[in-house]
Amino acid sequence: MKILCFGEIMIRLTPPNMLRLVQTTSFDVQYAGSEANVAVSLAQFGVPSAYVTRVPHTELGRTALGAISRYGVDTTPSVFGGDRLGLYYLEMGMGRRGSKVVYDRAGSGMATVKRGMIDWKKALKGVTWLHWSGITAALSQSAADVTLDALKAASKMGITISCDLNYRANLWKYGKTPAQIMPELVEYCDVLMGDGDAFNLFFDIKADNTVTPSRDEAESIKGYLKKVSERFPKLKYTTMTAREGFSASHNTYKGFLYDGVNIYASKVYDIPDILDRIGGGDAFMAGLIYGMVKNNDPQHIVEFATAAATLKHYVVGDYNLATVSEVESLVQGNMGGRVSR
Amino acid sequence: MKILCFGEIMIRLTPPNMLRLVQTTSFDVQYAGSEANVAVSLAQFGVPSAYVTRVPHTELGRTALGAISRYGVDTTPSVFGGDRLGLYYLEMGMGRRGSKVVYDRAGSGMATVKRGMIDWKKALKGVTWLHWSGITAALSQSAADVTLDALKAASKMGITISCDLNYRANLWKYGKTPAQIMPELVEYCDVLMGDGDAFNLFFDIKADNTVTPSRDEAESIKGYLKKVSERFPKLKYTTMTAREGFSASHNTYKGFLYDGVNIYASKVYDIPDILDRIGGGDAFMAGLIYGMVKNNDPQHIVEFATAAATLKHYVVGDYNLATVSEVESLVQGNMGGRVSR
Amino acid sequence: MKILCFGEIMIRLTPPNMLRLVQTTSFDVQYAGSEANVAVSLAQFGVPSAYVTRVPHTELGRTALGAISRYGVDTTPSVFGGDRLGLYYLEMGMGRRGSKVVYDRAGSGMATVKRGMIDWKKALKGVTWLHWSGITAALSQSAADVTLDALKAASKMGITISCDLNYRANLWKYGKTPAQIMPELVEYCDVLMGDGDAFNLFFDIKADNTVTPSRDEAESIKGYLKKVSERFPKLKYTTMTAREGFSASHNTYKGFLYDGVNIYASKVYDIPDILDRIGGGDAFMAGLIYGMVKNNDPQHIVEFATAAATLKHYVVGDYNLATVSEVESLVQGNMGGRVSR
Amino acid sequence: MKILCFGEIMIRLTPPNMLRLVQTTSFDVQYAGSEANVAVSLAQFGVPSAYVTRVPHTELGRTALGAISRYGVDTTPSVFGGDRLGLYYLEMGMGRRGSKVVYDRAGSGMATVKRGMIDWKKALKGVTWLHWSGITAALSQSAADVTLDALKAASKMGITISCDLNYRANLWKYGKTPAQIMPELVEYCDVLMGDGDAFNLFFDIKADNTVTPSRDEAESIKGYLKKVSERFPKLKYTTMTAREGFSASHNTYKGFLYDGVNIYASKVYDIPDILDRIGGGDAFMAGLIYGMVKNNDPQHIVEFATAAATLKHYVVGDYNLATVSEVESLVQGNMGGRVSR
Amino acid sequence: MKILCFGEIMIRLTPPNMLRLVQTTSFDVQYAGSEANVAVSLAQFGVPSAYVTRVPHTELGRTALGAISRYGVDTTPSVFGGDRLGLYYLEMGMGRRGSKVVYDRAGSGMATVKRGMIDWKKALKGVTWLHWSGITAALSQSAADVTLDALKAASKMGITISCDLNYRANLWKYGKTPAQIMPELVEYCDVLMGDGDAFNLFFDIKADNTVTPSRDEAESIKGYLKKVSERFPKLKYTTMTAREGFSASHNTYKGFLYDGVNIYASKVYDIPDILDRIGGGDAFMAGLIYGMVKNNDPQHIVEFATAAATLKHYVVGDYNLATVSEVESLVQGNMGGRVSR
Amino acid sequence: MKILCFGEIMIRLTPPNMLRLVQTTSFDVQYAGSEANVAVSLAQFGVPSAYVTRVPHTELGRTALGAISRYGVDTTPSVFGGDRLGLYYLEMGMGRRGSKVVYDRAGSGMATVKRGMIDWKKALKGVTWLHWSGITAALSQSAADVTLDALKAASKMGITISCDLNYRANLWKYGKTPAQIMPELVEYCDVLMGDGDAFNLFFDIKADNTVTPSRDEAESIKGYLKKVSERFPKLKYTTMTAREGFSASHNTYKGFLYDGVNIYASKVYDIPDILDRIGGGDAFMAGLIYGMVKNNDPQHIVEFATAAATLKHYVVGDYNLATVSEVESLVQGNMGGRVSR
Repeated sequence: MKILCFGEIMIRLTPPNMLRLVQTTSFDVQYAGSEANVAVSLAQFGVPSAYVTRVPHTELGRTALGAISRYGVDTTPSVFGGDRLGLYYLEMGMGRRGSKVVYDRAGSGMATVKRGMIDWKKALKGVTWLHWSGITAALSQSAADVTLDALKAASKMGITISCDLNYRANLWKYGKTPAQIMPELVEYCDVLMGDGDAFNLFFDIKADNTVTPSRDEAESIKGYLKKVSERFPKLKYTTMTAREGFSASHNTYKGFLYDGVNIYASKVYDIPDILDRIGGGDAFMAGLIYGMVKNNDPQHIVEFATAAATLKHYVVGDYNLATVSEVESLVQGNMGGRVSR
Repeated sequence: MKILCFGEIMIRLTPPNMLRLVQTTSFDVQYAGSEANVAVSLAQFGVPSAYVTRVPHTELGRTALGAISRYGVDTTPSVFGGDRLGLYYLEMGMGRRGSKVVYDRAGSGMATVKRGMIDWKKALKGVTWLHWSGITAALSQSAADVTLDALKAASKMGITISCDLNYRANLWKYGKTPAQIMPELVEYCDVLMGDGDAFNLFFDIKADNTVTPSRDEAESIKGYLKKVSERFPKLKYTTMTAREGFSASHNTYKGFLYDGVNIYASKVYDIPDILDRIGGGDAFMAGLIYGMVKNNDPQHIVEFATAAATLKHYVVGDYNLATVSEVESLVQGNMGGRVSR
Repeated sequence: MKILCFGEIMIRLTPPNMLRLVQTTSFDVQYAGSEANVAVSLAQFGVPSAYVTRVPHTELGRTALGAISRYGVDTTPSVFGGDRLGLYYLEMGMGRRGSKVVYDRAGSGMATVKRGMIDWKKALKGVTWLHWSGITAALSQSAADVTLDALKAASKMGITISCDLNYRANLWKYGKTPAQIMPELVEYCDVLMGDGDAFNLFFDIKADNTVTPSRDEAESIKGYLKKVSERFPKLKYTTMTAREGFSASHNTYKGFLYDGVNIYASKVYDIPDILDRIGGGDAFMAGLIYGMVKNNDPQHIVEFATAAATLKHYVVGDYNLATVSEVESLVQGNMGGRVSR
Repeated sequence: MKILCFGEIMIRLTPPNMLRLVQTTSFDVQYAGSEANVAVSLAQFGVPSAYVTRVPHTELGRTALGAISRYGVDTTPSVFGGDRLGLYYLEMGMGRRGSKVVYDRAGSGMATVKRGMIDWKKALKGVTWLHWSGITAALSQSAADVTLDALKAASKMGITISCDLNYRANLWKYGKTPAQIMPELVEYCDVLMGDGDAFNLFFDIKADNTVTPSRDEAESIKGYLKKVSERFPKLKYTTMTAREGFSASHNTYKGFLYDGVNIYASKVYDIPDILDRIGGGDAFMAGLIYGMVKNNDPQHIVEFATAAATLKHYVVGDYNLATVSEVESLVQGNMGGRVSR
Repeated sequence: MKILCFGEIMIRLTPPNMLRLVQTTSFDVQYAGSEANVAVSLAQFGVPSAYVTRVPHTELGRTALGAISRYGVDTTPSVFGGDRLGLYYLEMGMGRRGSKVVYDRAGSGMATVKRGMIDWKKALKGVTWLHWSGITAALSQSAADVTLDALKAASKMGITISCDLNYRANLWKYGKTPAQIMPELVEYCDVLMGDGDAFNLFFDIKADNTVTPSRDEAESIKGYLKKVSERFPKLKYTTMTAREGFSASHNTYKGFLYDGVNIYASKVYDIPDILDRIGGGDAFMAGLIYGMVKNNDPQHIVEFATAAATLKHYVVGDYNLATVSEVESLVQGNMGGRVSR
Repeated sequence: MKILCFGEIMIRLTPPNMLRLVQTTSFDVQYAGSEANVAVSLAQFGVPSAYVTRVPHTELGRTALGAISRYGVDTTPSVFGGDRLGLYYLEMGMGRRGSKVVYDRAGSGMATVKRGMIDWKKALKGVTWLHWSGITAALSQSAADVTLDALKAASKMGITISCDLNYRANLWKYGKTPAQIMPELVEYCDVLMGDGDAFNLFFDIKADNTVTPSRDEAESIKGYLKKVSERFPKLKYTTMTAREGFSASHNTYKGFLYDGVNIYASKVYDIPDILDRIGGGDAFMAGLIYGMVKNNDPQHIVEFATAAATLKHYVVGDYNLATVSEVESLVQGNMGGRVSR
């Protein structure tokens, strides 16, 4: 069993101590990216994971890979090339001040990746699951092309494929809309994660939000995911999450999983005193993959994934460094109030 | 349009990471003062602002001015002189442990300012609004004298004048009480901000706190501010705020504005997970001035000012670095729960 | 009046900024131990306190003692010896992620202390109260022996003796169970603090948790502490606390004190936005001793101790650095919402 | 008198504590650029200075300008635009490990500046001296075009013009060589600073390094600068510096100034225990301009400029924050060995 | 044996990482003062030392005392009072940039000490040696008066008295010159440390610097110290040091001791790569006192004191934390090049 | 080609900013050990390297392995077990104050490793070179036994074996002397690094230091290494280094390599302004192995190794992070004085 994640890894620059961008005299440095985050989380769960990307052959490129290999991710499938490593500035919010992400990733190694630069036969050798996200397709036409190649090769090799649609309004600037690019790519997927914006913009599938006394939220979402699922017949699982944000420091989180027949909804997880919410969706995705490769039942899969996403909010950086036993403990109702000694 | 703020700027020394004064091995350094805070906030709102003070001609004095000019405040009206820069220690509280401010400002450049040291004709050139606070009058007789000179000159030039009474029990040590000094100064003001302690001690005007089923809080405060307003006929606006402190990390905040006829009350803003509450009142004042120079309607003025004060609680240091769009977003009900990307 | 505390002091290594152990590139350093924490807190309350331990004659051993002498604790009774200073890693939790303590204290100066290394006659000279805890007896047979010697000597000199049972499942590894060691030692005590686990495992006394409409929680706990009290006839006071943990950042705390006749329960103290909860029980113990040596009435003793423990949650490190006036202010209902200036 | 500097300002990201890029978990943040450095240094010398650039209208763009306005530079001539702020990584060297600069500035506001975006008539109003450098011309054809416009406008207004050739091998990537671009621009200059590489690559003027017993180093350099000077008849002063690098922490520095007739050489300044050498040449340039606008004699100009460059090595960041009296003190032979108190 | 040191302790605020005052966003905090430094150094040498001062009864005052009690100094003789704790800013120099000290100590507890506030009989109980410095006499007339009281009391009790003249040009602002105050105080001293400026300004004794082939430096200094010694007949030892400053990071240091008959000169200690030179003279004084109370021979006393002063340059803060064995190791020629493991 | 390094990895705790152990409030964290350092350096040179050790199955154990896998070392041969991770405190010296290492490694996973815990057949699969050091044999009898097993297995598999004798006086506490243990182990080695103390204490081979006009240092060392080489006939290369320590911040370094016939001496490398000298010998060893596996000529091998060791002094932490091109650049005479940009 080996999960290969494909995407872009960037430097994340965060002012320390909740300083604003205009105030800070230093940045905390992390290396992160949606798919790398999934790979790291899987490795903490004890699932062999690997990562393929294209980074420049510089100290920064090598350090980006080292930053995930130190958490047990195999980075040997990655290739070197390009002029710069993408980066993003994160101004961490608190209370009534929301967080801000400022991307500076144009011209990165991944944005300039071209067909043939990654040898997919080699990269996919021994791989049982491939995970990618809509961010890669949003970078450039050539990155979308490379994604398509990957999906075709994986498909041919019988590898399970998951995708997080990950819609980012500030990307998709190369002249194509997601609706022009994504449907063809999603055709190859077995597992799909998205949200209302993505389903709408990418596939023109609209939510049916009618919640009535006789029809609860889960039923409503089931109807919605059913439409998505019918559009892409290969899909075994369709999934989405619902986050409510009372403030930058206090959210709730809930997961939904549809297996083509039934909808499974997790408990609502209350998330007070948030430390770092970036990467919550990636942690959910990793939790989902974990549950699926362990063949857990769907209800437990979605509880585990949601609890994993919850714990992510208490880890600095994009990576969820929670272990299986920590996640299971939260699933069992341990709300964090005890000191373990 | 140019707002000139007049007051003292000090070094603020804060133990990092919520350490207590007796523990810390370093101090975070800010340069702050009630009126400088107003000037900085106005500059973030895009309103041209300037600052006049007297600081020693040392690295520290120059750095104090640089600390606000970097945020766009014009400090050229300020003068150099005196032996030391005032300072204050701030032990930041959290939860059940309240914050503590220890002043060490005796003998500062502003405390020893003398008539004639500031050329008010020059300083007020092009100025449309002058803001000062009761702190300056509390420092020394000569500082109060200089304040009076400023008010007379501004008045003669038809400049709008605002004042925050800013009562500090630990100042006013030079032999005069506020009641002996402040009324004469407030006579010149168009806009006055105060609280119950100040109105009582400075002007012997007491609150009428009776809130009955037939008379709500706003009506009660209207009656109170009406008394103040009648005492100083030049006043166009009288304002005060109400803060409730559930803990050092959780407050609520509400603003009231009286225009001589009606009372306008803001929503109650819930302020959880406070990062740094110092300067909240100054942020309110800046919000108020912003709304007034923009000729907004009174209800919107007080909502904007209260939302501005709320956001200040999430910025490290005394300055409110929120922009107009951030404040308006909170006024519109965005509670901070979304990541902007 | 002099309170002598006896126990082990360790280096505490904590990743800064809520980082996890696997992420951190630095540790914040504290020197702490249950009984040292009690001594420091008492010194902040103005009660003369002293500390006796055995630390290696190295920079680290000397620094450990200096770390409490700077807070006014007399460390001259301590002796030097042994190969290493014990240490513990603390991964600070937040929200849904609980805190973790990893001990690395085997082979420390205190674990290898032997009879005769501490001259108890000398150490106890002028002492009116001796405080110890079950941790010392958990380290090694010889540390338990030395404890027994201390208790005999103190007893002979008419010194009041208090004990915090402080059960730690990861200690007690030298072949004896607490049930074999602790009862003999507790025989000498006048004041005993414990919790359900300790009373059960050490003395086989089980809680009677039945809370019925006609029998409130305090009555239930009174019945429980009565059993403990009857088992050890010398006990004047038996005490325990109840902590509820909604999350790692939000607890409540309540204290109970039984004087052989009546049960005294404190208010429930709400503890939101926790900064550092380690040492809460030690802060309670110090508050208790303070109240007792001041001959306060039992209700006030338990309120003071609980409020002291509450404030501890807002001080970085194990020590409660709150003063008597700060604790009394919380007892009076000041919830931290005001800035003192 | 007002000196206007024109160029690009970037974020500088430096690993703290001499960490290597592959090790660091944070970056120290500075905002710097060759011409901005000159402007800041001039402001410390009490010379009115202003800065014109193009930065994106983001928090980072505004912060870049604030970073120099806090040191007294007037940034109002600058304009907003473009997608990103350029940046550079600086791995600070020490001893036998040399420093490394990694540029990431493609696509910045300055690289994408176009003719007409800066209103030169407005920007040059009141300006008596314009300073620019070869870096701007190296960014893009359009940046070179804008530079030419600036030079023409300034020339027409009778403004003195200085240029630092500032050759950077990693720039000049837009398809033109410096030899194709720079000569036309340098035609407009009154003062020119360069080094052997630049004179050779830009103008095909080679050094004549023959130092013989009968012909010392200064004479040799005089011959060299004479050739440059003859090539560009408008030049009043040509200048260069000689740095010897024993290690990353120990250099010597020497300045040469040619006025068309005589060569003036400074003392050799020994620079041990270097703290931050970046910006040394800019500090020299600022010292030179200072001396020239003060009409100092050429020998003193070059001594002052070299001493200024020397002091820069002891200031963190690119800016020389030395004052005139500090520089003069070094010129007088005060080698830093005394504590001023 | 107990050495009592009398003087003022201040907060020392130092920008970290060699930042200049105008740049820093934080200060490192130390608590220091010439005489406190001597006390701490003596405690590290194993000599019982105590400290008497007057500090305000605030967190800062108590922390100042805790800062030296943690190093083993007995602070119980100190008294509380006054409005503020004095402070000084230290901009640490490096290479060609010299260090700067900016005092802000007017109005401190020690500056406002009055006769009778310190009970000298109590403070001097058990004391065998009293150390003071000219700084205290420079603060205010009343501080000089209190010093005189101390000297009279100590003298009457047969206590050995040492003084470091410690001339600071920026003090002595209360209307008296050192020449009016110091001679009377020095009459009581057994050991006197000074430098050329102090001997000249305080006592009008000028150096005789003539070093000729037939008369070496030590002989020249002997003649000089002989004059001082003759002026104050009680003096047993007169001492001075010679520092040569090649840069802020590289000095040499040499000590001279005159016993009324012979002059003893130490080796010249080369001090490269200086970390923190503040407190060097205090470390010398402590080394001297150590040697004298141990009855070492004069040559060894001066070697030890000079080596101690040398090691101080490698300790952050004012205190010399070197141990006797570390100092002796340097006296024996161990230049620091070995790792001890 | 794969180099396997076998030894113990520890946490290294270093006070930041040159603070002494008694001063620090935090520790910088590194994970290091002599053989791990060699593995990391080899990976930076592009040589595939792996590491085998035994660490506890805790966050700390896993983090220790992650700390080297992030630099490209394959840690899969390592095993988990034992109660604690060894650690060492490093007080970094400067100038006249030497560095101090305090070990706290008793009872670590490696010290308690037992025969059979490491499956050497599996660990050595694909390995072409095994590197170990005398430190492992110094930990415990069982660690020495495991070492012997490794050597026997490697020997049987025809793997090249290198050893650094690494004598540490503070280890070897389990009842055996190095002379009893090491000779048998060294019999298996092809490459041996040692110093005078080790050769003397381990093998009773004494240096013949006579350097005369007719016999230079290299000849003298050749005679010495010849004796070692003759004692262990399997040795192909014997090597040692000579370090001269002018101060903690300034050393020189020189390497010698004996191939059984000739002695090859490197240039003397001057090492001023040292940043972190720990791991210098390990960097030398890695340089040596690099040169040997690349089949470089002996003179170049020793130059490369010495230059590598020199560069190590400018990297924070034990690891040499220099690349081949950086080392070669120093070999070519680039002394660090240039900025690469």
